[in-house]
Amino acid sequence: MRAAESRPTHLALRYGPVRWSFAELNQRVQRLARQLATMGVKSGDRVALLAQNSPQFVACVHALTRLGAILVPLNVRLTKDELCWQLSDVRAAVLLHDAAYASIAAEVGGVLPAITRATLDDEAATDELVISHLPEAEIALRTLIDLDATQAIMYTSGTTGHPKGAIITYGMQWWSATASALNLGYQRDDCWLACLPFFHIGGLSLLMKSVIYGMSIVIHSKFDATAVNRSIVEDRVTMISVVAVMLQRMLVALDEEQHGDVPGRYPATLRCVLLGGGPAPLPLLEDCARRAIPVVQTYGLTEACSQAVTLAPEDALRKLGSAGRPLLPVQLQIRHEDQPAAPNEVGEIYLQGPTITPGYADRPEATVKALRDGWLATGDLGYLDSEGYLYVLDRRADLIISGGENVYPAEIESVLLAHPAVAEAGVCGMADTHWGQVPIGFVVLQAGSSVDEQKLKEYVAQRLARYKQPRAIHIVRQLPRNSSGKLLRRELPKLLSE
Amino acid sequence: MRAAESRPTHLALRYGPVRWSFAELNQRVQRLARQLATMGVKSGDRVALLAQNSPQFVACVHALTRLGAILVPLNVRLTKDELCWQLSDVRAAVLLHDAAYASIAAEVGGVLPAITRATLDDEAATDELVISHLPEAEIALRTLIDLDATQAIMYTSGTTGHPKGAIITYGMQWWSATASALNLGYQRDDCWLACLPFFHIGGLSLLMKSVIYGMSIVIHSKFDATAVNRSIVEDRVTMISVVAVMLQRMLVALDEEQHGDVPGRYPATLRCVLLGGGPAPLPLLEDCARRAIPVVQTYGLTEACSQAVTLAPEDALRKLGSAGRPLLPVQLQIRHEDQPAAPNEVGEIYLQGPTITPGYADRPEATVKALRDGWLATGDLGYLDSEGYLYVLDRRADLIISGGENVYPAEIESVLLAHPAVAEAGVCGMADTHWGQVPIGFVVLQAGSSVDEQKLKEYVAQRLARYKQPRAIHIVRQLPRNSSGKLLRRELPKLLSE
Repeated sequence: MRAAESRPTHLALRYGPVRWSFAELNQRVQRLARQLATMGVKSGDRVALLAQNSPQFVACVHALTRLGAILVPLNVRLTKDELCWQLSDVRAAVLLHDAAYASIAAEVGGVLPAITRATLDDEAATDELVISHLPEAEIALRTLIDLDATQAIMYTSGTTGHPKGAIITYGMQWWSATASALNLGYQRDDCWLACLPFFHIGGLSLLMKSVIYGMSIVIHSKFDATAVNRSIVEDRVTMISVVAVMLQRMLVALDEEQHGDVPGRYPATLRCVLLGGGPAPLPLLEDCARRAIPVVQTYGLTEACSQAVTLAPEDALRKLGSAGRPLLPVQLQIRHEDQPAAPNEVGEIYLQGPTITPGYADRPEATVKALRDGWLATGDLGYLDSEGYLYVLDRRADLIISGGENVYPAEIESVLLAHPAVAEAGVCGMADTHWGQVPIGFVVLQAGSSVDEQKLKEYVAQRLARYKQPRAIHIVRQLPRNSSGKLLRRELPKLLSE
Repeated sequence: MRAAESRPTHLALRYGPVRWSFAELNQRVQRLARQLATMGVKSGDRVALLAQNSPQFVACVHALTRLGAILVPLNVRLTKDELCWQLSDVRAAVLLHDAAYASIAAEVGGVLPAITRATLDDEAATDELVISHLPEAEIALRTLIDLDATQAIMYTSGTTGHPKGAIITYGMQWWSATASALNLGYQRDDCWLACLPFFHIGGLSLLMKSVIYGMSIVIHSKFDATAVNRSIVEDRVTMISVVAVMLQRMLVALDEEQHGDVPGRYPATLRCVLLGGGPAPLPLLEDCARRAIPVVQTYGLTEACSQAVTLAPEDALRKLGSAGRPLLPVQLQIRHEDQPAAPNEVGEIYLQGPTITPGYADRPEATVKALRDGWLATGDLGYLDSEGYLYVLDRRADLIISGGENVYPAEIESVLLAHPAVAEAGVCGMADTHWGQVPIGFVVLQAGSSVDEQKLKEYVAQRLARYKQPRAIHIVRQLPRNSSGKLLRRELPKLLSE
């Protein structure tokens, strides 16, 4: 509402041929909110949303705010059983979905008939109604937001067991958005390309930045490297958030489009490529530096409302491989055996501040376990250098302990990725009677490249200590990734049986 | 401290030949904090500061934060008696001053011997100590800031009676700084020229922006139009806050430097001239538009931590004369006879939000009077147009009621200022037996110009309704202004007796 008052004609979002100004977005939001009220949605209700990135998704996020209802964004890759479990676990009152997920939503409805369902209309881009044929209740919509109120419950897989719903408050979003603006700068003509799924925190926090800043976004419903490259030029994109594998594919597509020997580049309007989703391979960062691509590394997680630590643009080259320094309102500690670690000493990353979740919905035990004296135990390993810059190593659960030595998968993956024939790499631990665990590697080759396991092993042997060298390196067609493109190391062992 | 960690080598401040990086500023702050601890300054103490703009002033502001002490910045124009009254009223424990105010501080010390005094060393720019020869106490300095804690008590004259001390919290500063960044944009190479006094909220809030953003400032100890113009070019200034009379003088100086007929311009690096301190005369705004000077009008007050309403750069021409829209966290209402006013209806401006003061120190009655249901009654008159843009008319206390008609001094001043011979204009009311009040005008002529009262009256008569035409227009040598350059209309009648 405030963005619509301040910048009514400014482009709020673009999605293919669809363009909504902030005034138009606000109108859709208000109408959808009144439609949802007709469906019985009220303050405090938990409303699940199963949809791909679209303008309707955006309208839905803000419509729930206007009603004081809580958004539960669902991962579109979940199976029917997983969806049913999550909807029951969160006690959802309503399931909203787009046309693409109508059939699985109907199946879910068969199992959970008490949940009200409605389809977000694909035609909403041209029609004014987001849900067809549903009348609008005549109610007053909320105009003030309580920062301590819950905006969303976002299920995160965590490291073990069933996923749990992290509470995302409006205050977390506000502090995250403002701190990010101070860190990356904010220009009033910024335009952010949204290709991360909105049901992950990287996507959802971008939707909040858009309305807090009054900033345009360009929505891509799925990641397509060529389409993204084209959009960066045609839509004058200034910012984009990606994970490493997306950026790698963008660079490959860029070079293919070039048809030349000179590495492809982006226009100078692209001022920030925010790179998250896990430690980035050094060869990728070096490649970007050669192409003068303004990569800003970041470390974040759902529980920290995305971005928690960011490498300032001016440090990008000096601190290659670092995730940078915590955002202004965030405090960071490395703890080793429950004590603050010394510089360069590896330990678990702890975070505190107003961008950090107050806990997990309806899971007091998980909350107590994750939040210790107000500090969030992230489950990630890393260290601070002598200047206080964070280097993220791995998920603690992914750590391989081989003969008593800590072996970090990301370090080995980084070496494999530096090989010219390798497009993607993943490393995990395998039980070994002698060493406890040994690392094993999986690689996807560059299109048209060929190399055998022996050659790869020799390559690695020249670059890594013996205990870090993978016992085996398997050449596979693809690596397991989540819908944000993050590598799922825990699922690598499944490839062995295939 | 955080700015020093994130951008240690980035320029924090420049003052003539003096340049301090954020690491250096942090070091001065820490040493000064430890020196103040030696003097006995402790958490909650009220520490008065009597100094002109300087690096030492900046160090002092932040040193008090590191001790949890409360800053009471004193207006350097106050007389000995006024200083004594304010120091007693606020129960100051310590009076810090610079060398320039050593003698008046000594006089004050004679009257109030219980107040500890210390001189901030002018040599601090080259020496590392901010107070000479004072040892540093070995204490731990604060590293966390409570947003609800009081940073400063700033005396504002208000409309009547003795000044009272508005409480400025850290939260007000944080919300103001972030909201301003979203409104004006923030670029990591921004450099803000500081020529408003640091003892006013416009200056103090800039010091907080500098450390919250990690942004360079260029300090001018006093306003000199030629020096400011030179600094804008040489220091690559991107932002500057000024009041109208300063900007007028800058333009005159700019044209003199040009020696040509073409109106002078500023380099494109100057991206924002934040214009506050009262309604701006339209001729000035039009002149700036002709010169492509990016003027951003703003309406603010001490109780709102400076900037509360700002005209976005893209609206500068479309809404010429408007102060714009409230910053995102601020709510604004116009009330007429205690009811919300209709669009275009004049009333008193009310503000609410996290940038608004919680009240006046030790003055519960004044607090209750100013804050009604959480809304601050600003004492300023204005209206919202149909798009919700604020037009500020005048201080309610400056309003002239003539024959039952409301007459706004700023409107008449604006007409007088449009006359080519007029450099400055002020209008106030004078008692009149027939009409109740009538407006009278005072003008300062442009150097080298001449015009008589009769000609000016004819000029005004063509442009304003009869009841708005000043009964008399006096040509004077200067107008009464406060140290920020704001016109003091209440003091205009004194000119009659001179």
